[in-house]
Amino acid sequence: MAKEFPEPEFRYHHFVSYGETDAMGVLYNAEYLHLFERARSFAMRQLGMSYAEVEKRGVILPVREASCRYRKPVTYDEEIIVRVGVEQWKKASMRFAYEIRSTDMETLYATGMTEHACVSPEGRVVRCPDWLRDMFR
Amino acid sequence: MAKEFPEPEFRYHHFVSYGETDAMGVLYNAEYLHLFERARSFAMRQLGMSYAEVEKRGVILPVREASCRYRKPVTYDEEIIVRVGVEQWKKASMRFAYEIRSTDMETLYATGMTEHACVSPEGRVVRCPDWLRDMFR
Amino acid sequence: MAKEFPEPEFRYHHFVSYGETDAMGVLYNAEYLHLFERARSFAMRQLGMSYAEVEKRGVILPVREASCRYRKPVTYDEEIIVRVGVEQWKKASMRFAYEIRSTDMETLYATGMTEHACVSPEGRVVRCPDWLRDMFR
Amino acid sequence: MAKEFPEPEFRYHHFVSYGETDAMGVLYNAEYLHLFERARSFAMRQLGMSYAEVEKRGVILPVREASCRYRKPVTYDEEIIVRVGVEQWKKASMRFAYEIRSTDMETLYATGMTEHACVSPEGRVVRCPDWLRDMFR
Repeated sequence: MAKEFPEPEFRYHHFVSYGETDAMGVLYNAEYLHLFERARSFAMRQLGMSYAEVEKRGVILPVREASCRYRKPVTYDEEIIVRVGVEQWKKASMRFAYEIRSTDMETLYATGMTEHACVSPEGRVVRCPDWLRDMFR
Repeated sequence: MAKEFPEPEFRYHHFVSYGETDAMGVLYNAEYLHLFERARSFAMRQLGMSYAEVEKRGVILPVREASCRYRKPVTYDEEIIVRVGVEQWKKASMRFAYEIRSTDMETLYATGMTEHACVSPEGRVVRCPDWLRDMFR
Repeated sequence: MAKEFPEPEFRYHHFVSYGETDAMGVLYNAEYLHLFERARSFAMRQLGMSYAEVEKRGVILPVREASCRYRKPVTYDEEIIVRVGVEQWKKASMRFAYEIRSTDMETLYATGMTEHACVSPEGRVVRCPDWLRDMFR
Repeated sequence: MAKEFPEPEFRYHHFVSYGETDAMGVLYNAEYLHLFERARSFAMRQLGMSYAEVEKRGVILPVREASCRYRKPVTYDEEIIVRVGVEQWKKASMRFAYEIRSTDMETLYATGMTEHACVSPEGRVVRCPDWLRDMFR
Protein backbone atom coordinates (compact mmCIF):
# COMPACT_ATOMS: atom_id res chain seq x y z
CA MET A 1 0.00 0.00 0.00
CA ALA A 2 1.45 3.31 -1.07
CA LYS A 3 1.75 5.44 2.01
CA GLU A 4 3.39 8.84 1.89
CA PHE A 5 5.19 9.64 5.05
CA PRO A 6 7.76 12.42 5.54
CA GLU A 7 11.42 11.48 5.10
CA PRO A 8 13.55 10.77 7.05
CA GLU A 9 11.25 8.68 9.21
CA PHE A 10 11.93 6.99 12.52
CA ARG A 11 10.27 4.00 14.15
CA TYR A 12 9.95 3.84 17.89
CA HIS A 13 9.01 0.46 19.38
CA HIS A 14 6.78 0.25 22.41
CA PHE A 15 4.92 -2.35 24.46
CA VAL A 16 1.56 -1.17 25.80
CA SER A 17 1.61 -1.33 29.62
CA TYR A 18 -1.29 -1.79 32.04
CA GLY A 19 -0.81 1.74 33.25
CA GLU A 20 -1.49 3.03 29.74
CA THR A 21 -4.72 1.12 29.23
CA ASP A 22 -8.19 2.01 30.45
CA ALA A 23 -11.28 0.13 31.59
CA MET A 24 -12.14 -0.65 27.95
CA GLY A 25 -8.95 -2.70 27.90
CA VAL A 26 -7.25 -0.47 25.35
CA LEU A 27 -4.61 2.25 25.15
CA TYR A 28 -6.21 5.40 26.64
CA ASN A 29 -6.58 8.36 24.27
CA ALA A 30 -4.26 10.73 26.16
CA GLU A 31 -1.44 8.16 26.13
CA TYR A 32 -1.02 8.62 22.39
CA LEU A 33 0.36 12.10 23.03
CA HIS A 34 2.90 10.64 25.45
CA LEU A 35 3.90 8.15 22.76
CA PHE A 36 4.23 10.95 20.22
CA GLU A 37 6.62 12.71 22.58
CA ARG A 38 8.67 9.56 23.14
CA ALA A 39 8.85 8.97 19.39
CA ARG A 40 10.04 12.48 18.49
CA SER A 41 12.63 12.39 21.30
CA PHE A 42 13.79 9.04 19.96
CA ALA A 43 14.06 10.52 16.46
CA MET A 44 16.15 13.42 17.72
CA ARG A 45 18.42 11.09 19.64
CA GLN A 46 18.89 9.00 16.48
CA LEU A 47 19.81 12.19 14.62
CA GLY A 48 22.55 12.86 17.12
CA MET A 49 21.07 15.58 19.27
CA SER A 50 18.60 14.91 22.08
CA TYR A 51 15.81 17.37 22.74
CA ALA A 52 17.55 18.23 26.02
CA GLU A 53 20.57 19.37 23.98
CA VAL A 54 18.35 21.33 21.59
CA GLU A 55 17.05 23.20 24.64
CA LYS A 56 20.59 23.79 25.88
CA ARG A 57 21.35 25.38 22.51
CA GLY A 58 18.56 27.85 23.26
CA VAL A 59 15.59 26.52 21.33
CA ILE A 60 12.47 25.36 23.10
CA LEU A 61 9.77 23.61 21.11
CA PRO A 62 6.51 23.75 23.08
CA VAL A 63 3.52 21.93 21.60
CA ARG A 64 1.15 24.51 20.10
CA GLU A 65 -1.32 22.08 18.68
CA ALA A 66 -1.83 18.32 18.79
CA SER A 67 -4.32 15.99 17.20
CA CYS A 68 -4.89 12.29 16.92
CA ARG A 69 -7.23 10.17 14.82
CA TYR A 70 -7.91 6.85 16.59
CA ARG A 71 -8.63 4.22 13.92
CA LYS A 72 -8.40 0.90 15.75
CA PRO A 73 -7.95 0.24 19.45
CA VAL A 74 -4.58 -1.03 20.70
CA THR A 75 -4.74 -3.63 23.44
CA TYR A 76 -2.62 -4.39 26.48
CA ASP A 77 0.84 -5.89 25.93
CA GLU A 78 0.73 -5.30 22.18
CA GLU A 79 3.99 -4.26 20.60
CA ILE A 80 3.49 -1.22 18.43
CA ILE A 81 5.56 1.10 16.29
CA VAL A 82 5.28 4.85 16.49
CA ARG A 83 6.40 6.22 13.14
CA VAL A 84 7.52 9.83 13.19
CA GLY A 85 8.85 12.42 10.78
CA VAL A 86 8.85 16.18 10.23
CA GLU A 87 5.96 17.07 7.96
CA GLN A 88 6.36 20.80 7.66
CA TRP A 89 8.67 23.68 8.47
CA LYS A 90 7.37 27.21 8.80
CA LYS A 91 9.36 30.28 9.71
CA ALA A 92 8.85 29.96 13.45
CA SER A 93 7.21 26.57 13.82
CA MET A 94 7.43 22.96 12.72
CA ARG A 95 5.11 20.01 12.54
CA PHE A 96 5.69 16.33 13.26
CA ALA A 97 3.52 13.62 11.70
CA TYR A 98 2.91 10.30 13.47
CA GLU A 99 1.45 6.92 12.75
CA ILE A 100 0.89 4.12 15.19
CA ARG A 101 1.17 0.73 13.54
CA SER A 102 1.59 -2.95 14.26
CA THR A 103 5.20 -4.17 14.15
CA ASP A 104 4.66 -5.63 10.65
CA MET A 105 3.43 -2.14 9.61
CA GLU A 106 0.26 -3.74 8.19
CA THR A 107 -2.25 -2.37 10.69
CA LEU A 108 -2.66 1.36 11.08
CA TYR A 109 -3.97 2.13 14.58
CA ALA A 110 -3.75 5.88 14.63
CA THR A 111 -2.45 8.95 12.85
CA GLY A 112 -1.58 12.23 14.47
CA MET A 113 0.44 15.41 14.46
CA THR A 114 2.01 17.89 16.82
CA GLU A 115 2.86 21.46 15.89
CA HIS A 116 5.66 23.17 17.79
CA ALA A 117 6.57 26.82 18.08
CA CYS A 118 10.27 27.73 18.12
CA VAL A 119 10.73 29.73 21.28
CA SER A 120 13.72 31.35 23.02
CA PRO A 121 14.46 30.55 26.67
CA GLU A 122 12.80 33.89 27.49
CA GLY A 123 9.61 32.70 25.83
CA ARG A 124 9.80 34.77 22.66
CA VAL A 125 8.82 33.14 19.36
CA VAL A 126 11.90 32.96 17.18
CA ARG A 127 12.88 31.85 13.68
CA CYS A 128 13.62 28.10 13.60
CA PRO A 129 17.42 27.89 13.42
CA ASP A 130 19.07 26.35 10.37
CA TRP A 131 20.93 23.73 12.39
CA LEU A 132 17.59 22.41 13.58
CA ARG A 133 16.22 22.17 10.03
CA ASP A 134 19.46 20.64 8.80
CA MET A 135 19.31 18.04 11.51
CA PHE A 136 16.13 16.60 10.01
CA ARG A 137 17.41 16.46 6.44
CA MET B 1 -15.88 39.51 23.86
CA ALA B 2 -18.58 37.67 21.97
CA LYS B 3 -17.71 34.02 22.17
CA GLU B 4 -19.93 31.40 20.58
CA PHE B 5 -19.93 28.21 22.51
CA PRO B 6 -22.44 25.38 22.18
CA GLU B 7 -25.42 25.43 24.54
CA PRO B 8 -25.97 24.02 27.10
CA GLU B 9 -22.45 24.48 28.40
CA PHE B 10 -20.86 23.15 31.58
CA ARG B 11 -17.93 24.42 33.59
CA TYR B 12 -15.65 22.00 35.36
CA HIS B 13 -13.29 23.47 37.96
CA HIS B 14 -9.83 22.04 38.41
CA PHE B 15 -6.59 22.82 40.27
CA VAL B 16 -3.44 21.91 38.36
CA SER B 17 -1.45 19.35 40.36
CA TYR B 18 2.31 18.69 40.37
CA GLY B 19 1.69 15.35 38.74
CA GLU B 20 0.09 17.08 35.76
CA THR B 21 2.93 19.52 35.15
CA ASP B 22 6.19 18.90 33.32
CA ALA B 23 9.77 20.15 33.57
CA MET B 24 8.74 23.41 31.86
CA GLY B 25 6.61 24.06 34.95
CA VAL B 26 3.34 23.91 33.03
CA LEU B 27 0.42 21.56 32.41
CA TYR B 28 1.73 18.80 30.12
CA ASN B 29 0.07 18.54 26.70
CA ALA B 30 -1.42 15.05 27.19
CA GLU B 31 -3.10 16.13 30.43
CA TYR B 32 -5.52 18.32 28.49
CA LEU B 33 -7.15 15.18 27.11
CA HIS B 34 -7.61 13.87 30.65
CA LEU B 35 -9.23 17.17 31.58
CA PHE B 36 -11.51 16.98 28.55
CA GLU B 37 -12.67 13.56 29.74
CA ARG B 38 -13.28 14.80 33.28
CA ALA B 39 -15.24 17.75 31.94
CA ARG B 40 -17.54 15.74 29.68
CA SER B 41 -18.15 13.21 32.48
CA PHE B 42 -18.98 16.11 34.77
CA ALA B 43 -21.41 17.50 32.15
CA MET B 44 -23.18 14.16 31.84
CA ARG B 45 -23.45 13.83 35.60
CA GLN B 46 -24.96 17.32 35.73
CA LEU B 47 -27.47 16.25 33.09
CA GLY B 48 -28.58 13.38 35.28
CA MET B 49 -26.89 10.42 33.67
CA SER B 50 -23.26 9.52 34.23
CA TYR B 51 -21.24 8.08 31.36
CA ALA B 52 -21.15 4.79 33.29
CA GLU B 53 -24.97 4.72 33.09
CA VAL B 54 -24.88 5.59 29.38
CA GLU B 55 -22.70 2.53 28.88
CA LYS B 56 -25.09 0.40 30.93
CA ARG B 57 -27.86 1.49 28.58
CA GLY B 58 -25.83 -0.01 25.76
CA VAL B 59 -24.06 2.95 24.18
CA ILE B 60 -20.29 3.24 24.22
CA LEU B 61 -18.69 6.48 23.07
CA PRO B 62 -15.03 5.81 22.22
CA VAL B 63 -12.92 8.78 21.20
CA ARG B 64 -12.39 8.68 17.43
CA GLU B 65 -10.53 11.91 17.14
CA ALA B 66 -9.12 14.48 19.54
CA SER B 67 -7.36 17.78 19.09
CA CYS B 68 -6.12 20.62 21.23
CA ARG B 69 -4.79 24.08 20.46
CA TYR B 70 -2.50 25.26 23.28
CA ARG B 71 -2.64 29.05 23.44
CA LYS B 72 -1.07 29.97 26.76
CA PRO B 73 0.66 27.73 29.28
CA VAL B 74 -1.14 26.88 32.53
CA THR B 75 1.08 26.77 35.60
CA TYR B 76 1.11 24.64 38.74
CA ASP B 77 -1.64 25.19 41.32
CA GLU B 78 -3.66 27.42 39.02
CA GLU B 79 -7.40 27.00 39.23
CA ILE B 80 -8.87 26.60 35.78
CA ILE B 81 -12.25 26.03 34.19
CA VAL B 82 -12.84 23.43 31.52
CA ARG B 83 -15.85 24.57 29.52
CA VAL B 84 -17.61 21.84 27.60
CA GLY B 85 -20.61 21.46 25.31
CA VAL B 86 -21.82 19.30 22.42
CA GLU B 87 -20.85 20.99 19.19
CA GLN B 88 -22.24 18.60 16.65
CA TRP B 89 -24.43 15.53 16.25
CA LYS B 90 -24.05 13.23 13.28
CA LYS B 91 -25.95 10.05 12.62
CA ALA B 92 -23.51 7.79 14.40
CA SER B 93 -21.16 10.20 16.09
CA MET B 94 -21.01 13.35 18.19
CA ARG B 95 -18.48 16.03 18.94
CA PHE B 96 -17.67 17.87 22.16
CA ALA B 97 -16.05 21.30 22.15
CA TYR B 98 -13.82 22.46 25.01
CA GLU B 99 -12.18 25.60 26.25
CA ILE B 100 -9.74 25.91 29.11
CA ARG B 101 -10.01 29.28 30.80
CA SER B 102 -9.06 31.15 33.94
CA THR B 103 -11.78 31.16 36.63
CA ASP B 104 -12.81 34.71 35.65
CA MET B 105 -13.21 33.40 32.07
CA GLU B 106 -10.97 36.25 30.83
CA THR B 107 -7.95 34.20 29.78
CA LEU B 108 -8.32 31.49 27.15
CA TYR B 109 -5.62 28.88 27.65
CA ALA B 110 -6.70 26.25 25.18
CA THR B 111 -9.44 25.09 22.85
CA GLY B 112 -10.11 21.55 21.80
CA MET B 113 -12.54 18.92 20.64
CA THR B 114 -13.19 15.21 20.89
CA GLU B 115 -15.24 13.25 18.39
CA HIS B 116 -16.95 10.09 19.59
CA ALA B 117 -18.45 7.21 17.66
CA CYS B 118 -21.68 5.68 18.98
CA VAL B 119 -20.90 2.01 19.39
CA SER B 120 -22.81 -1.02 20.67
CA PRO B 121 -21.32 -3.22 23.40
CA GLU B 122 -20.38 -5.64 20.59
CA GLY B 123 -18.34 -2.90 18.95
CA ARG B 124 -20.67 -2.12 16.03
CA VAL B 125 -21.18 1.53 15.06
CA VAL B 126 -24.82 2.43 15.72
CA ARG B 127 -27.14 5.39 15.32
CA CYS B 128 -26.87 7.77 18.28
CA PRO B 129 -30.01 7.11 20.32
CA ASP B 130 -32.60 9.88 20.75
CA TRP B 131 -32.42 9.76 24.54
CA LEU B 132 -28.72 10.64 24.32
CA ARG B 133 -29.40 13.61 22.02
CA ASP B 134 -32.31 14.71 24.17
CA MET B 135 -30.13 14.64 27.23
CA PHE B 136 -27.96 17.41 25.83
CA ARG B 137 -30.85 19.71 24.83
CA MET C 1 -15.92 1.42 63.89
CA ALA C 2 -13.19 3.08 65.91
CA LYS C 3 -10.59 4.30 63.47
CA GLU C 4 -7.62 6.34 64.58
CA PHE C 5 -6.65 8.91 62.03
CA PRO C 6 -4.46 11.98 62.58
CA GLU C 7 -6.26 15.22 63.44
CA PRO C 8 -7.05 17.56 61.79
CA GLU C 9 -8.18 15.44 58.87
CA PHE C 10 -9.38 16.51 55.43
CA ARG C 11 -11.58 14.73 52.94
CA TYR C 12 -11.00 15.18 49.26
CA HIS C 13 -13.80 13.99 46.94
CA HIS C 14 -12.97 12.45 43.58
CA PHE C 15 -14.70 10.64 40.73
CA VAL C 16 -12.60 7.91 39.10
CA SER C 17 -12.09 8.76 35.42
CA TYR C 18 -11.49 6.40 32.47
CA GLY C 19 -8.00 7.76 32.15
CA GLU C 20 -7.19 6.60 35.69
CA THR C 21 -8.42 3.04 35.21
CA ASP C 22 -6.58 0.14 33.61
CA ALA C 23 -7.52 -2.93 31.57
CA MET C 24 -8.70 -4.67 34.76
CA GLY C 25 -11.40 -1.99 34.93
CA VAL C 26 -10.07 -0.51 38.15
CA LEU C 27 -8.07 2.47 39.38
CA TYR C 28 -4.43 1.83 38.37
CA ASN C 29 -1.93 1.50 41.20
CA ALA C 30 0.18 4.57 40.30
CA GLU C 31 -2.92 6.80 40.27
CA TYR C 32 -3.22 6.48 44.04
CA LEU C 33 -0.06 8.56 44.41
CA HIS C 34 -1.60 11.26 42.21
CA LEU C 35 -4.67 11.20 44.44
CA PHE C 36 -2.51 11.47 47.55
CA GLU C 37 -0.93 14.60 46.07
CA ARG C 38 -4.31 16.12 45.21
CA ALA C 39 -5.56 15.38 48.72
CA ARG C 40 -2.63 16.96 50.54
CA SER C 41 -2.79 20.04 48.29
CA PHE C 42 -6.50 20.25 49.05
CA ALA C 43 -5.76 20.02 52.79
CA MET C 44 -3.21 22.82 52.59
CA ARG C 45 -5.60 25.01 50.62
CA GLN C 46 -8.25 24.38 53.30
CA LEU C 47 -5.73 25.44 55.93
CA GLY C 48 -5.25 28.74 54.16
CA MET C 49 -1.95 28.27 52.41
CA SER C 50 -1.56 26.39 49.14
CA TYR C 51 1.54 24.29 48.56
CA ALA C 52 2.54 26.83 45.88
CA GLU C 53 2.60 29.48 48.61
CA VAL C 54 4.58 27.20 50.93
CA GLU C 55 7.19 26.94 48.19
CA LYS C 56 7.20 30.72 47.75
CA ARG C 57 7.97 31.02 51.46
CA GLY C 58 11.07 28.94 50.81
CA VAL C 59 10.12 25.42 51.83
CA ILE C 60 10.01 22.60 49.32
CA LEU C 61 8.58 19.27 50.40
CA PRO C 62 9.76 16.59 47.96
CA VAL C 63 8.43 13.07 48.48
CA ARG C 64 11.15 10.94 50.04
CA GLU C 65 9.10 7.82 50.46
CA ALA C 66 5.64 6.68 49.45
CA SER C 67 3.67 3.53 50.04
CA CYS C 68 0.20 2.24 49.42
CA ARG C 69 -1.72 -0.84 50.56
CA TYR C 70 -4.43 -1.71 48.04
CA ARG C 71 -7.28 -3.43 49.88
CA LYS C 72 -10.19 -3.43 47.47
CA PRO C 73 -10.28 -2.32 43.84
CA VAL C 74 -12.01 0.96 42.97
CA THR C 75 -13.99 0.91 39.74
CA TYR C 76 -14.66 3.47 37.03
CA ASP C 77 -16.96 6.41 37.85
CA GLU C 78 -17.01 5.60 41.54
CA GLU C 79 -17.00 8.60 43.85
CA ILE C 80 -14.35 8.20 46.51
CA ILE C 81 -12.95 10.13 49.44
CA VAL C 82 -9.25 10.58 50.01
CA ARG C 83 -8.77 11.20 53.71
CA VAL C 84 -5.54 12.91 54.65
CA GLY C 85 -3.77 14.15 57.76
CA VAL C 86 -0.27 14.71 59.08
CA GLU C 87 0.82 11.61 60.95
CA GLN C 88 4.25 12.59 62.12
CA TRP C 89 6.66 15.51 62.38
CA LYS C 90 10.38 14.98 62.58
CA LYS C 91 13.05 17.63 62.72
CA ALA C 92 13.51 17.89 58.98
CA SER C 93 10.69 15.80 57.60
CA MET C 94 6.98 15.11 57.91
CA ARG C 95 4.63 12.32 57.05
CA PHE C 96 1.11 12.36 55.66
CA ALA C 97 -1.30 9.45 56.18
CA TYR C 98 -4.03 8.64 53.66
CA GLU C 99 -7.09 6.48 53.38
CA ILE C 100 -9.23 5.96 50.32
CA ARG C 101 -12.84 5.27 51.24
CA SER C 102 -16.32 5.16 49.81
CA THR C 103 -18.30 8.38 50.29
CA ASP C 104 -20.20 6.85 53.25
CA MET C 105 -16.78 6.07 54.79
CA GLU C 106 -17.86 2.42 55.25
CA THR C 107 -15.56 0.80 52.71
CA LEU C 108 -11.81 1.16 53.06
CA TYR C 109 -10.19 0.80 49.64
CA ALA C 110 -6.62 1.71 50.44
CA THR C 111 -4.27 3.13 53.02
CA GLY C 112 -1.02 4.91 52.34
CA MET C 113 1.59 7.41 53.38
CA THR C 114 4.05 9.86 51.93
CA GLU C 115 7.11 11.13 53.74
CA HIS C 116 8.47 14.53 52.77
CA ALA C 117 11.83 16.12 53.44
CA CYS C 118 11.89 19.85 54.26
CA VAL C 119 14.27 21.34 51.73
CA SER C 120 15.46 24.87 50.92
CA PRO C 121 15.18 26.22 47.37
CA GLU C 122 18.89 25.42 47.01
CA GLY C 123 18.16 21.78 47.80
CA ARG C 124 19.54 21.67 51.32
CA VAL C 125 17.62 19.68 53.97
CA VAL C 126 16.38 22.16 56.58
CA ARG C 127 14.46 22.14 59.85
CA CYS C 128 10.70 22.16 59.24
CA PRO C 129 9.64 25.73 60.06
CA ASP C 130 7.26 26.39 62.95
CA TRP C 131 4.70 28.15 60.77
CA LEU C 132 4.37 24.95 58.74
CA ARG C 133 3.83 22.84 61.85
CA ASP C 134 1.44 25.41 63.28
CA MET C 135 -0.57 25.37 60.08
CA PHE C 136 -1.51 21.74 60.67
CA ARG C 137 -2.57 22.19 64.30
CA MET D 1 29.84 -1.80 46.84
CA ALA D 2 28.35 -5.15 47.70
CA LYS D 3 24.71 -4.98 46.87
CA GLU D 4 22.43 -7.93 47.39
CA PHE D 5 19.72 -8.12 44.81
CA PRO D 6 17.49 -11.12 44.11
CA GLU D 7 18.60 -13.47 41.34
CA PRO D 8 17.82 -13.69 38.46
CA GLU D 9 17.74 -9.96 37.91
CA PHE D 10 16.66 -7.99 34.86
CA ARG D 11 17.59 -4.51 33.72
CA TYR D 12 15.08 -2.38 31.89
CA HIS D 13 16.44 0.71 30.11
CA HIS D 14 14.39 3.87 29.99
CA PHE D 15 14.75 7.53 28.94
CA VAL D 16 12.84 9.98 31.14
CA SER D 17 10.30 11.86 29.01
CA TYR D 18 8.85 15.34 29.53
CA GLY D 19 5.49 13.79 30.25
CA GLU D 20 6.99 11.92 33.21
CA THR D 21 8.60 14.96 34.81
CA ASP D 22 6.98 17.58 37.01
CA ALA D 23 7.42 21.30 37.65
CA MET D 24 10.50 20.55 39.81
CA GLY D 25 12.12 19.27 36.62
CA VAL D 26 12.36 15.70 37.86
CA LEU D 27 10.64 12.34 37.44
CA TYR D 28 7.31 12.61 39.29
CA ASN D 29 6.82 10.23 42.22
CA ALA D 30 3.89 8.28 40.74
CA GLU D 31 5.84 7.55 37.56
CA TYR D 32 8.15 5.22 39.47
CA LEU D 33 5.25 2.78 39.84
CA HIS D 34 4.70 2.87 36.08
CA LEU D 35 8.39 2.11 35.61
CA PHE D 36 8.17 -0.76 38.07
CA GLU D 37 5.35 -2.24 35.99
CA ARG D 38 7.28 -1.84 32.75
CA ALA D 39 10.32 -3.46 34.33
CA ARG D 40 8.48 -6.53 35.67
CA SER D 41 6.69 -6.98 32.33
CA PHE D 42 10.05 -6.77 30.61
CA ALA D 43 11.45 -9.38 33.00
CA MET D 44 8.58 -11.76 32.28
CA ARG D 45 8.97 -11.28 28.54
CA GLN D 46 12.68 -12.08 28.90
CA LEU D 47 11.75 -15.24 30.76
CA GLY D 48 9.61 -16.33 27.85
CA MET D 49 6.10 -15.61 29.07
CA SER D 50 4.55 -12.16 28.96
CA TYR D 51 2.24 -11.10 31.76
CA ALA D 52 -0.61 -11.17 29.22
CA GLU D 53 0.11 -14.90 28.75
CA VAL D 54 0.30 -15.47 32.50
CA GLU D 55 -3.21 -14.00 32.71
CA LYS D 56 -4.39 -16.24 29.86
CA ARG D 57 -3.15 -19.21 31.87
CA GLY D 58 -5.52 -18.12 34.61
CA VAL D 59 -3.34 -16.25 37.08
CA ILE D 60 -3.86 -12.58 37.75
CA LEU D 61 -1.30 -10.72 39.84
CA PRO D 62 -2.89 -7.51 41.14
CA VAL D 63 -0.67 -5.17 43.13
CA ARG D 64 -1.55 -5.48 46.81
CA GLU D 65 1.09 -3.17 48.12
CA ALA D 66 3.68 -0.84 46.62
CA SER D 67 6.37 1.35 48.06
CA CYS D 68 9.20 3.49 46.84
CA ARG D 69 12.10 5.23 48.54
CA TYR D 70 13.22 8.24 46.50
CA ARG D 71 16.92 8.82 47.13
CA LYS D 72 18.04 11.21 44.40
CA PRO D 73 15.94 13.01 41.81
CA VAL D 74 16.09 11.83 38.20
CA THR D 75 16.05 14.59 35.61
CA TYR D 76 14.54 14.92 32.14
CA ASP D 77 16.11 12.91 29.30
CA GLU D 78 18.29 10.91 31.64
CA GLU D 79 18.76 7.27 30.69
CA ILE D 80 18.09 5.06 33.67
CA ILE D 81 18.01 1.36 34.48
CA VAL D 82 15.17 -0.24 36.38
CA ARG D 83 16.57 -3.36 38.02
CA VAL D 84 14.01 -5.95 38.97
CA GLY D 85 13.88 -9.38 40.56
CA VAL D 86 11.57 -11.55 42.67
CA GLU D 87 12.41 -11.00 46.30
CA GLN D 88 9.97 -13.33 47.98
CA TRP D 89 7.45 -16.07 47.33
CA LYS D 90 4.64 -16.74 49.74
CA LYS D 91 1.88 -19.30 49.36
CA ALA D 92 -0.52 -16.98 47.60
CA SER D 93 1.59 -13.91 46.90
CA MET D 94 4.94 -12.76 45.60
CA ARG D 95 7.08 -9.69 45.89
CA PHE D 96 9.23 -7.90 43.34
CA ALA D 97 12.18 -5.72 44.37
CA TYR D 98 13.30 -2.75 42.26
CA GLU D 99 16.17 -0.34 42.03
CA ILE D 100 16.45 2.65 39.77
CA ARG D 101 20.04 3.36 38.82
CA SER D 102 22.18 5.27 36.37
CA THR D 103 23.26 3.25 33.32
CA ASP D 104 26.72 2.68 34.85
CA MET D 105 24.92 1.31 37.92
CA GLU D 106 26.93 3.70 40.13
CA THR D 107 24.12 6.01 41.21
CA LEU D 108 21.16 4.61 43.10
CA TYR D 109 18.14 6.85 42.54
CA ALA D 110 15.43 4.81 44.16
CA THR D 111 14.50 1.47 45.66
CA GLY D 112 11.07 -0.04 45.79
CA MET D 113 8.87 -3.09 45.92
CA THR D 114 5.49 -4.34 44.78
CA GLU D 115 3.62 -7.19 46.39
CA HIS D 116 1.19 -9.14 44.25
CA ALA D 117 -1.60 -11.51 45.22
CA CYS D 118 -2.13 -14.62 43.07
CA VAL D 119 -5.77 -14.44 42.04
CA SER D 120 -8.04 -16.56 39.82
CA PRO D 121 -9.99 -14.90 36.98
CA GLU D 122 -13.01 -15.03 39.31
CA GLY D 123 -11.11 -12.94 41.83
CA ARG D 124 -10.37 -15.65 44.39
CA VAL D 125 -6.94 -15.71 46.04
CA VAL D 126 -5.17 -18.89 44.96
CA ARG D 127 -1.89 -20.68 45.58
CA CYS D 128 0.86 -19.35 43.30
CA PRO D 129 1.28 -22.06 40.63
CA ASP D 130 4.57 -23.94 40.35
CA TRP D 131 5.10 -22.97 36.72
CA LEU D 132 5.09 -19.33 37.79
CA ARG D 133 7.68 -19.93 40.50
CA ASP D 134 9.76 -22.08 38.15
CA MET D 135 9.73 -19.34 35.57
CA PHE D 136 11.68 -17.07 37.91
CA ARG D 137 14.33 -19.62 38.83
